[in-house]
Amino acid sequence: MKITSVLSGGLDSTVLTYKLLAEGHSVRAVSICYGQRHQRELSYAARTTRKLGIPWRMIDLSVLKDIFGKSSQTSNNVTVPHGHYEEEVMKLTVVPNRNMILLAVAAGWAIGQGDEAIAYAAHAGDHAIYPDCRPVFVDAMVRALQLCHYGPVILLAPFLGITKADIVKLGDSLGVPFAETWSCYEGGERHCGQCGTCIERKEAFVLAGMVDPTEYLA
Amino acid sequence: MKITSVLSGGLDSTVLTYKLLAEGHSVRAVSICYGQRHQRELSYAARTTRKLGIPWRMIDLSVLKDIFGKSSQTSNNVTVPHGHYEEEVMKLTVVPNRNMILLAVAAGWAIGQGDEAIAYAAHAGDHAIYPDCRPVFVDAMVRALQLCHYGPVILLAPFLGITKADIVKLGDSLGVPFAETWSCYEGGERHCGQCGTCIERKEAFVLAGMVDPTEYLA
Repeated sequence: MKITSVLSGGLDSTVLTYKLLAEGHSVRAVSICYGQRHQRELSYAARTTRKLGIPWRMIDLSVLKDIFGKSSQTSNNVTVPHGHYEEEVMKLTVVPNRNMILLAVAAGWAIGQGDEAIAYAAHAGDHAIYPDCRPVFVDAMVRALQLCHYGPVILLAPFLGITKADIVKLGDSLGVPFAETWSCYEGGERHCGQCGTCIERKEAFVLAGMVDPTEYLA
Repeated sequence: MKITSVLSGGLDSTVLTYKLLAEGHSVRAVSICYGQRHQRELSYAARTTRKLGIPWRMIDLSVLKDIFGKSSQTSNNVTVPHGHYEEEVMKLTVVPNRNMILLAVAAGWAIGQGDEAIAYAAHAGDHAIYPDCRPVFVDAMVRALQLCHYGPVILLAPFLGITKADIVKLGDSLGVPFAETWSCYEGGERHCGQCGTCIERKEAFVLAGMVDPTEYLA
């Protein structure tokens, strides 16, 4: 199948891209800058696609940065909360309707390029905090993308029923160089080790029983 | 209700914005530049919102212009087809997944601003040619927008069951200055009178039994 992979440069979407290629699909990757604090992830996406030798398109929608109101990931006035994803304060990291925007733009590009499907890496661990990673949301987007053009755009979200630890195991079996993926919401020189996504990343390696090659500041 | 109106500056979305205000809603308008050939419409949106005294936000996503492939509305290499919407050649005017992108971005802004709903002006006459104006697509987007955040974003599409002639009649009853709306896909100094949307506009006034104040070149 001809598939556009929505690649942030993070661990999940990198493993997804490796998986699609391993399955023999023709894969193109798209990354979107929406003004995220951790734009550093995009350079990881660039590196991954160069390494894999697949077409990559970065779409710069950083003008969206100031439409989202009070999200720690797009507003300079909101501090990135530290702690576990389960905590209420983590809601500050939600960028309103981010995933619909990413999927909508990716689908526009996919149609323009003649791809049949788009893939994104929402997973079971995301649901607690992110409304736009829940299976009910994904189901609704599957339907909307089926109907948005003359023919359907197929939405693939193969990680929806598995955890980040499962993704780490899968990535290991596919030879994903995890050190070449970026998670940290702070977007500094190194992973902070204290924000929600760093803590989730650490946990995933522990649960998968694997060595975490990430250099954390704390 | 607090509503974000997706206002292109065209006839339909202008009447929609007047209607929402007449119903007593608190209305904000958002217009999106996606690199459309007929960007002129956006200056009409600006004028309308100034006249109505409502907040207006223009979001410049013109970098999207070259992701859409061969659409006459975003590619300089594709000529705007002339003729009736029913004709096959009018498919050239479709911008792939445009409406999902507009609705997704409008919803992100609406959530950031604390609005409860977004409204757009898809109508019964659009269906033949535009997949992303069909009721089935709108139904799917209603569902996706209900689920994209912690609380629902309500999607209003009150013109879905009525024609452009009905919209003209409604606009007349609301005092909409039709000459201050822009339809033409060519986006020149005046309405060309020959593209699909000009012909539809002319027809709507005839069917509504009303005088068309638009100055057409042909």
